[in-house]
Amino acid sequence: MFTFNPQFSSADDSSTLALPAVAPGGPLAPQLLDRMHRYWQAANYLCVGQIYLKANPLLREPLAVEHIKPRLLGHWGTSAGQNFIYVHLNRLISEQLAQMVYISGPGHGGPTLNACAWLEGTYTDVHPDITADEAGMLRFFRSFSTPGGVPSHCGPHTPNSLHEGGELGYSLVHAFGAVFDNPDLLVACVVGDGEAETCPLEGSWKSVRFLNPRHDGAVLPILHLNGYKISGPTVEARTDDADLIELYQGRGYAPIIVAGDDLPGMHQRFAAALDAAYAQVRDIQRQAREQGVTKRPRWPMIILRSPKGWTGPKVVDDLPVEGTFRAHQVPLANVLENPEHLAQLEAWMRSYNPQSLFDDKGSLIAELQALTPPAPLRLGAVPHVNGGRLLTALDLPNFADYGLHVPGPGQVIAEAPRKLGEYLRDVIRANPRNFRLFGPDETNSNRLNAVFEATGRTAAGPLLGVDDHLSVDGRVMEVLSEHLCEGWLEGYLLTGRHGMWSTYEAFAQVVDSMVTQHAKWLQQCRDFAWRRPLASLNILLTSHAWRNDHNGFSHQSTGFVDNVLQRRSDVVRVYYPPDSNCLVNVFDHCLRSRNYVNVVTCGKQPDFQWLDFEQALKHCSQGASIWDFATNDAGADPDIVLACAGDVPTTEAVAASWLLQKHVPGIRVRLVNVVDLSILASPESRPHGMDHVSFEALFTREAPVMFAFHGSTWVIHSLVHGRANEARFHVRGFSDRGTTTTPFDMVVLNNMSRFQLAIDALSHVPRLRSSSLNAMSYFEEQLRTHHTYIRQHFEDMPDIRNWHWTADFSQPQSPPPLAKGQARGQTFTDA
Amino acid sequence: MFTFNPQFSSADDSSTLALPAVAPGGPLAPQLLDRMHRYWQAANYLCVGQIYLKANPLLREPLAVEHIKPRLLGHWGTSAGQNFIYVHLNRLISEQLAQMVYISGPGHGGPTLNACAWLEGTYTDVHPDITADEAGMLRFFRSFSTPGGVPSHCGPHTPNSLHEGGELGYSLVHAFGAVFDNPDLLVACVVGDGEAETCPLEGSWKSVRFLNPRHDGAVLPILHLNGYKISGPTVEARTDDADLIELYQGRGYAPIIVAGDDLPGMHQRFAAALDAAYAQVRDIQRQAREQGVTKRPRWPMIILRSPKGWTGPKVVDDLPVEGTFRAHQVPLANVLENPEHLAQLEAWMRSYNPQSLFDDKGSLIAELQALTPPAPLRLGAVPHVNGGRLLTALDLPNFADYGLHVPGPGQVIAEAPRKLGEYLRDVIRANPRNFRLFGPDETNSNRLNAVFEATGRTAAGPLLGVDDHLSVDGRVMEVLSEHLCEGWLEGYLLTGRHGMWSTYEAFAQVVDSMVTQHAKWLQQCRDFAWRRPLASLNILLTSHAWRNDHNGFSHQSTGFVDNVLQRRSDVVRVYYPPDSNCLVNVFDHCLRSRNYVNVVTCGKQPDFQWLDFEQALKHCSQGASIWDFATNDAGADPDIVLACAGDVPTTEAVAASWLLQKHVPGIRVRLVNVVDLSILASPESRPHGMDHVSFEALFTREAPVMFAFHGSTWVIHSLVHGRANEARFHVRGFSDRGTTTTPFDMVVLNNMSRFQLAIDALSHVPRLRSSSLNAMSYFEEQLRTHHTYIRQHFEDMPDIRNWHWTADFSQPQSPPPLAKGQARGQTFTDA
Repeated sequence: MFTFNPQFSSADDSSTLALPAVAPGGPLAPQLLDRMHRYWQAANYLCVGQIYLKANPLLREPLAVEHIKPRLLGHWGTSAGQNFIYVHLNRLISEQLAQMVYISGPGHGGPTLNACAWLEGTYTDVHPDITADEAGMLRFFRSFSTPGGVPSHCGPHTPNSLHEGGELGYSLVHAFGAVFDNPDLLVACVVGDGEAETCPLEGSWKSVRFLNPRHDGAVLPILHLNGYKISGPTVEARTDDADLIELYQGRGYAPIIVAGDDLPGMHQRFAAALDAAYAQVRDIQRQAREQGVTKRPRWPMIILRSPKGWTGPKVVDDLPVEGTFRAHQVPLANVLENPEHLAQLEAWMRSYNPQSLFDDKGSLIAELQALTPPAPLRLGAVPHVNGGRLLTALDLPNFADYGLHVPGPGQVIAEAPRKLGEYLRDVIRANPRNFRLFGPDETNSNRLNAVFEATGRTAAGPLLGVDDHLSVDGRVMEVLSEHLCEGWLEGYLLTGRHGMWSTYEAFAQVVDSMVTQHAKWLQQCRDFAWRRPLASLNILLTSHAWRNDHNGFSHQSTGFVDNVLQRRSDVVRVYYPPDSNCLVNVFDHCLRSRNYVNVVTCGKQPDFQWLDFEQALKHCSQGASIWDFATNDAGADPDIVLACAGDVPTTEAVAASWLLQKHVPGIRVRLVNVVDLSILASPESRPHGMDHVSFEALFTREAPVMFAFHGSTWVIHSLVHGRANEARFHVRGFSDRGTTTTPFDMVVLNNMSRFQLAIDALSHVPRLRSSSLNAMSYFEEQLRTHHTYIRQHFEDMPDIRNWHWTADFSQPQSPPPLAKGQARGQTFTDA
Repeated sequence: MFTFNPQFSSADDSSTLALPAVAPGGPLAPQLLDRMHRYWQAANYLCVGQIYLKANPLLREPLAVEHIKPRLLGHWGTSAGQNFIYVHLNRLISEQLAQMVYISGPGHGGPTLNACAWLEGTYTDVHPDITADEAGMLRFFRSFSTPGGVPSHCGPHTPNSLHEGGELGYSLVHAFGAVFDNPDLLVACVVGDGEAETCPLEGSWKSVRFLNPRHDGAVLPILHLNGYKISGPTVEARTDDADLIELYQGRGYAPIIVAGDDLPGMHQRFAAALDAAYAQVRDIQRQAREQGVTKRPRWPMIILRSPKGWTGPKVVDDLPVEGTFRAHQVPLANVLENPEHLAQLEAWMRSYNPQSLFDDKGSLIAELQALTPPAPLRLGAVPHVNGGRLLTALDLPNFADYGLHVPGPGQVIAEAPRKLGEYLRDVIRANPRNFRLFGPDETNSNRLNAVFEATGRTAAGPLLGVDDHLSVDGRVMEVLSEHLCEGWLEGYLLTGRHGMWSTYEAFAQVVDSMVTQHAKWLQQCRDFAWRRPLASLNILLTSHAWRNDHNGFSHQSTGFVDNVLQRRSDVVRVYYPPDSNCLVNVFDHCLRSRNYVNVVTCGKQPDFQWLDFEQALKHCSQGASIWDFATNDAGADPDIVLACAGDVPTTEAVAASWLLQKHVPGIRVRLVNVVDLSILASPESRPHGMDHVSFEALFTREAPVMFAFHGSTWVIHSLVHGRANEARFHVRGFSDRGTTTTPFDMVVLNNMSRFQLAIDALSHVPRLRSSSLNAMSYFEEQLRTHHTYIRQHFEDMPDIRNWHWTADFSQPQSPPPLAKGQARGQTFTDA
């Protein structure tokens, strides 16, 4: 009996939507319904086969112990429900010729995506050894969750997967990232009710507020309530329909509920729900595209309540399984040891009637193959799930046009990201539909505001007169959620576009785990040549640990780089440009690169500029170089190498060189600045490691190295492991002793001030120990004086504030020229 | 005019609530209203003073440049709104004698909590130098965001702060953690509309589903919509009331909206809303406590729409400021340079009429002091905000009762967490109201299910017959969100209770940033003796990177420990118990400890047990020791030290010792197991570092050390930095090359198999190089054989599966006895 009764929002804006006509018995004609049901059974059969079988794939013989894998891995619980959805989406695609992507949000959806890709032929397209016949089916089963095979989760090996099925919670944010600027794309995003409890998933629903029905595609969320996580019930499965409807209406959706386990009723109701949702989406889009975006639409979604482990064993060992948490994983365990379980497994598999689904060769029978959508629209073939196929290079402006005039080292003070902002402005102008800039409302604060000359912020609601550069078409997506910034960008990149996001260094750690998952995805994609290269994921960390004058200790952490560096360096690059011209150079490189996670750390506060554009280009191309202006070793062996990476450490190291040359006659100092951290590693351990000859040309073979580093000391110790005399590397880094509000005091607290570096450097130069005693005393006294001064005056002492680089090492008479409206040591608009 | 019109849910369950009677003009009598308004002005004045003044605190002289701080740090935008709420809560507390905590969720709420604590006297209670007079007020202003002073955010220095005001998003989850098992406590949790966009905050609303009105207290969320983040509008501020009401009703709340900027109307309406909400809370609680928990209540919340930067400058430089994003930070900048701004600042400050608020001595006038709640109920004095004052030690069972019988090393196979589960079961029994166990639905999977003999899972909805140990009174809180597990536990600990949570090692990284914030809070608390010690935050990582047979690459990561180790080790401890008896020992220690983050990593799969209880006790007390059974150096210098930390590396290291002793006659091997990672560090660098004599008694001074480590190699390299001949430490660790489904293959892929360790060890023993050639060949052949075997049979080869430790180094005849129902190499119920 047909019981479909969509529960739409009663809000005005959706009541105008036209619903499609539904046939009296439901939208599916009897023959189509029957075929869809059997296609579903085929998918279910293949899921069970993947988990259990190592032989006898089509049960041509009675099932025996020797056909069973020794270790039963994989998860049945979510499989049948997701297969159900997949089969119905195929019908919709075929009828509407819709361009769709399927995202499998629930945990452990690997068997489903594998099975459905095999049935539609796309699995064989990319894995030619897994043929569409019995031999291929056997290889398919045997490869599932076995050594050298494929993992039990969705992954890059599955052609219909947009993203790794590992950590839960990112399906919906990926879905929205995928449809931005893809007006014809509809992403069906299945959200599991376990996954729905994660905070990133809960926070992703509001993405719909940022969707532009005119220029973007649409997401159709399908919230799949099958009741249980691993052992316990889920929150939303135990929430009644009325509350769910209010919740999702409040979130901006018009939920349609389909619930039950009756067949064929569920088929008819779900098909009707899909038709209704599809019609609503197209109606919203048509209105917006014909009449402009005049109101906030309420987008359709489906809530599907169906049993966990649907169609599987109902009772095992006298305990209910189907519809309960016991169906989560392998519902019949110990099959090798328990003959009753073995018999039950055979009965279960035969309940799908495999002989009627697959022909003599083991291929899906032609009648069912006919349900598969046209080849280019199959969910495993649509190019968006393999976004590299759609990727076109950005039209990038000439980066040399964004050089900052630097007449001499340290003679100009500027906020490094400002020129990058101008560069990005012109990137946006030249690439109006395939580049976006994301961030937690810090674009202005991060000095990238030139982009607002070209575009606005994406409006997530009505506009007011007082708003600053807010627009329904804005290319800058600001939301106070690192999860959404990272996740939207991932979805945008995975579907073949370009972008970046910027944030506080400390709070980038909010997405440590997400970035790890993305890096793992990139890493695994390299195993599959048919997975085409993606644009790199670019992250700019510009409110960094060393200059959080406004915010203090809680906003100071350098751990994000520590975490990404754990990933193999063939997918992660880490840059510390020391000034504006280096920053533009690095970013231009990042936007041209493919398949990396690029992490660029560069402060936004007014600070010294060291290199002109040509020098920066050369410096960044090499990744590290000797800075001649701060070096006086005349190419001979230095007494000490002052190395530095990061803008604040660079200033301190350059100042330490100045102090040493001024106060320690005869000392030979070399200054090496490092932009690209990976060049420090031995080439044996990381692909971008500098060869040993070049490395020693910079750092010598034996000279002590005092290394001022932006992040944790162990990063440098670990990278130089394997270099000659590695014990000579003395690293000063961020040591988590912060909370201060004067820039110089921060370096004092972390033992990285110019005075401390000079003192420590001298301690490694025994030949000058006696002649440098006066200098040592002076440096120590300066530290003490500073301590007292700042507690009285609340700002750094003039000797620090007014210092700048001079070639003759006499105390400068006046501070360097300031950029308009800027003052060194003063904090500007900040979060 | 009175315009209060609470918009309650129309749901049946809330329509029965009795509303308090409201006076015709509003609940506040004119005199009370006037005094509250002036108290609010005093708080606002103090916020402005903190940001701007270094002298002339009460404006007894005309404001001049020399009174202004050189760097203007701090944020005005949220201050007046939060002061408004605080003043009104004070009224409620005084009238109802309610036990309340205030949580300041919006970013940058430091000035408010400081100001209100100073006004109520609690700031002076804990900072006696900041007296309640003009001199104290000046010191108070001068200490704000200056070197050696207090940060511009809430922090441990503020007596009314429960948690650090750094990273946004955790206010609500802390609030719920605080009220669990605190039936008389009401936490007023102010949620900022910027913060409301974070995923952790969005995911925290569902905490209300886990609240037990009988035994728990209540949270009153006050969603403060002041419209803007830094530069852009917030999503919820631009959502209309109807959608907000639906959203929050769907989330389980009954919202009351108070909106506007009219005075005194806003006072009356907010007071009425507070009265109504308070009455509803008490009514829900009374019903549940009298009649039992029979239905899911809808809890009240308040949505407050008020202008950002309320009562501040309306227009600056011809641009609107009050009510816009421009009020976010310092609304009048460049006061030192711009006389007009200076004049405007003075006018603004004088608009609060400070001479009428503070007396001649600079103290709050007595009339206003009378509004302060009774001393023990002041928001800065209620003991819950300084939970150590309420902390009582757990009643712990005798941990020796949870020993596992281990007749000899490697003679028993068991799942290590099972005994811990029994121990925790009895901890729960003995401590029914101040200990909880949290986790993302993995308590069973993690083999801790003995706890369900004592308690159930907290039900978040209606119960069904099929449910497994679900109960409204359950002490085990399972939710598929690492953020909620961590955040609830933090709130529970911060208010003086005890607990732990367990999760997948890889997905603990989801809360890298949260744990960092908690560790920073603990670290800063040490600066304030009046902040009493808290119970440690205990995390058990038991589905670890080396045994994710079901889940593969996406579930493998060891980065969580890398991240926590960045925190200074005076607040972080890291343990790798190698077996069941060590695990119980370590956990007993953790539950007794204070002020740490304890991270314990120990697998849940069936594996060898090495030490009996007495041996484990001694071993864990030392943190590391030589394992005599696997050592044959007779106390003399070994050829090689095999060190290990972590259960899987321990098995491989022990097996490598066995292989070396069996196949390389004459070799002297020593095996050192490390449980407590921090003992590796030099005592100069970390407080728990082992002294050098003890360290060299374990590791010798010069012998090569082959170190098999559970996590990243650099962790060990970094820890042993500074030890004698540190270059002799050769570390094998997790190298992110996973995805396999046989246990032994995982160690092969990561170059840590027993064969590889033996090969590498031999390469460092030149004296035996020629006599060990045959052994080397054998080890290499075994690796090749294994590779082929697993691809054919899908499980490890018998030589691996059946190996166990034997003292005579002959191949064992049969595998060791298995625990009931267990098989080595087989995976049990897993996520």
